[in-house]
Amino acid sequence: MGSIFKETLGLYTDLYELTMAQGYFFCQKKDQNTSFDYCFRTNPYKGGYTVFAGLQDFIDALNEFTYSKSDLEFLKANGFKDEFLEYLRDFKFSGDIYSVKEGEIVFPNEPLLSVEGNIIECQLVESILLNILNFESLIATKAFRIKHISGQKLFADFGLRRAQDFGAIHASRAACIGGASSTSNTLAGKIYDIPVSGTMAHSWVQSFDSELEAFRAFAETNPDNTILLVDTYNTLKSGVPNAITIGHEMAARGEKLKAIRLDSGDLAYLSKKARKQLDDAGLHDVQILASNQLNEYVIKTLLLDQNAAIDGFGIGTEMITGKSDAALDGVYKLTEIDGEPKMKFSENIEKITLPGKKQMVRYFDEEGMFYRDGILLQDEKAEEVDTIYHRIYPEKNTEVSKLKVELLREKVVEQGNILLQHKSPVEIHEYLKSRAALLPDEHKRFISPHLYKVGISNKLMATRNALTQKLRTLH
Amino acid sequence: MGSIFKETLGLYTDLYELTMAQGYFFCQKKDQNTSFDYCFRTNPYKGGYTVFAGLQDFIDALNEFTYSKSDLEFLKANGFKDEFLEYLRDFKFSGDIYSVKEGEIVFPNEPLLSVEGNIIECQLVESILLNILNFESLIATKAFRIKHISGQKLFADFGLRRAQDFGAIHASRAACIGGASSTSNTLAGKIYDIPVSGTMAHSWVQSFDSELEAFRAFAETNPDNTILLVDTYNTLKSGVPNAITIGHEMAARGEKLKAIRLDSGDLAYLSKKARKQLDDAGLHDVQILASNQLNEYVIKTLLLDQNAAIDGFGIGTEMITGKSDAALDGVYKLTEIDGEPKMKFSENIEKITLPGKKQMVRYFDEEGMFYRDGILLQDEKAEEVDTIYHRIYPEKNTEVSKLKVELLREKVVEQGNILLQHKSPVEIHEYLKSRAALLPDEHKRFISPHLYKVGISNKLMATRNALTQKLRTLH
Repeated sequence: MGSIFKETLGLYTDLYELTMAQGYFFCQKKDQNTSFDYCFRTNPYKGGYTVFAGLQDFIDALNEFTYSKSDLEFLKANGFKDEFLEYLRDFKFSGDIYSVKEGEIVFPNEPLLSVEGNIIECQLVESILLNILNFESLIATKAFRIKHISGQKLFADFGLRRAQDFGAIHASRAACIGGASSTSNTLAGKIYDIPVSGTMAHSWVQSFDSELEAFRAFAETNPDNTILLVDTYNTLKSGVPNAITIGHEMAARGEKLKAIRLDSGDLAYLSKKARKQLDDAGLHDVQILASNQLNEYVIKTLLLDQNAAIDGFGIGTEMITGKSDAALDGVYKLTEIDGEPKMKFSENIEKITLPGKKQMVRYFDEEGMFYRDGILLQDEKAEEVDTIYHRIYPEKNTEVSKLKVELLREKVVEQGNILLQHKSPVEIHEYLKSRAALLPDEHKRFISPHLYKVGISNKLMATRNALTQKLRTLH
Repeated sequence: MGSIFKETLGLYTDLYELTMAQGYFFCQKKDQNTSFDYCFRTNPYKGGYTVFAGLQDFIDALNEFTYSKSDLEFLKANGFKDEFLEYLRDFKFSGDIYSVKEGEIVFPNEPLLSVEGNIIECQLVESILLNILNFESLIATKAFRIKHISGQKLFADFGLRRAQDFGAIHASRAACIGGASSTSNTLAGKIYDIPVSGTMAHSWVQSFDSELEAFRAFAETNPDNTILLVDTYNTLKSGVPNAITIGHEMAARGEKLKAIRLDSGDLAYLSKKARKQLDDAGLHDVQILASNQLNEYVIKTLLLDQNAAIDGFGIGTEMITGKSDAALDGVYKLTEIDGEPKMKFSENIEKITLPGKKQMVRYFDEEGMFYRDGILLQDEKAEEVDTIYHRIYPEKNTEVSKLKVELLREKVVEQGNILLQHKSPVEIHEYLKSRAALLPDEHKRFISPHLYKVGISNKLMATRNALTQKLRTLH
């Protein structure tokens, strides 16, 4: 799976990364060994968890993260110096990357992924890393919230037309990781091996002299997948009755009308009325699909409060853009240079980053459910950590010595070579499902979910506190 | 300007477009002449206008809207038939496109762009048209709202890391059309000839033993463009004083510190304090730039209510994603087949589309300002239309016979050949500026802006009413 772009991606970065890289180069810092952490600060949608996604796409993009002749000419025209451009000519990421698995359930302030390498390569990949991981995690989380509430009922990604431009391609992949059973985005289907789906728009119906004629022609050309859009003129007076006529005609030919689709009006009211019309006509097997401005909240009230007779959903704008959140607030912070821990200091203690190379562990309760996550220094042995502490208020802490513990991260890139095994979005969704089953339900509530607790080890806290003191003195 | 994609774009479409196209093909409808209109229903951000953008990118994408061998294999594997795939093998859009200019100020329910051609080509391009035009218009509108309020102060697009994935590329272009003076997105800068900008992140500062050393090294490697990020440790106690030291050192070398950048804390408070520190040190020319979660509302209160000492802005998430709106609600509706007007009927009269091939005109008041827009049938002479009517309530109408009138649309593609003259985002912004100057200020208010009125001609109304009657009878 290569990139979808013709262009090399080395310029798909904020200019300041290149400006700094050139600065490091001329300050004789280019061979410094550094480590950067990726983490986010807030779960999207005021939710209780986040689904980590985008890892495979980010790593694939690194393969294309090089500089073509025209890229270098562009940089030269923008004042970059020949000696540095010569360095970029051969640039290829050659560092290591550690990451949690794609599809993992994760939480704020966790070092989900770390990049280790020389300071230039670590700096240059920042923007594309954030661009891809922030977005796919946002969309996968949204899709899984929808999956969580729609249960066994399938939903398709219909978002292409309202997606944020070519973001649509990774968005459809992330939607599938989160639980969409198919996508309307045919190119995403081809690239990522996602099932594709889609039948008719209003224009099909309008293009015939009558709705009945339009339905009949569609059934004849698509006998195996006849889904009729019934709201072009009048859902209950025209659309459903015409669909019933076609359903009977198909039955007479030994074929089957698969479903009708509602795309406007009140979906609870119309679905129940349409169900009755179909049932009264003996078409009990014909499904009712619904689309139009759906999200997890609307689906929840349709299904749970109003018992809507809907068998599946098509979901557009809100899933593909992650509405009402525009972005996951992921950041990428320097944590170590040549063995020296580093951190971003802040008067706002919430924003102080955690210094040093780290690892992540997950603790399980007696029922085998997720209980706490721990952030340790890389050289600590997980089994020797007996207590983890709240990042800011250490008097809040948890004894973990008797709990089952699991390492959450693995090396996915080594000296620039990809170790990560390729998985399809559907396979990643299966992993997500298995993990989400271990997340207690109270973290999945849409409103005021229970806060999942993430602690740090004593050694990490001591490292941070010592560095805080040092920086306070210096600045 | 070719495509940025390796892939052909023929599959960058909702599957139902292909399903319908195959249906048209086998129903012997493939040579029917059709016309489709693009319009949106609501101005984004509860604003009073929308900036139309994305036209050039859409038209360029049409050039790549073809089917490769592997595309056809993918479709075959998904059940498409050989005879239709044979047709797609040679597919290339060969119709006509009429459009308002990119950068035009436009309003809801206007047929901004029409596609005319055979039913298959018009149908297949729907999704990519909506994907690009909806998004770039959303972002250009957002950026122009920011431009409107920031006036002569420049602002840069810093959004790449929080953009919705590869949507970032067109987003940066649209931001520049709307008024961003530069972008941090280096690839967008290269592709679209947009000025690029960017200096340092916190990691630069952290990578040195002290902030002062970091600033000094940066000034030495970037003497012509020294902008120092002053909030890594403590803005007023460390960052600004260190920047002042560097400013004096540079002055002694005959160089000049260009600016400092604030990226956290209260920007009004910090900018005024920092301004005083800089002024007291004699560094009156050093500018203060600000970033961190900015949007048009924050900038308005910073500049107008609080007199913040900020000379320029870097704007990220909210501009590049169009927050708080995730998408412009543009739609693409069939209006005519083989000379017969068509429309989407709806019990909700607001959603009834306007049938037939149309044109758009703009009327000017005595001061030469935008006054009304009119939608006429294509074969009407603008000068013969003396009254335009509210789409739904015809008792609301405007006499226009004495007003100066302008045709708003032009043919941009003819039989698949591009007529549109290529313009850079900066040139398009100049056009936007000239047009926005003619839009009365009351439509530019952020809160409850005045509604700009768009009317339809008597003939168009009669066509719609007759078709409504016919459809009511039939369904």
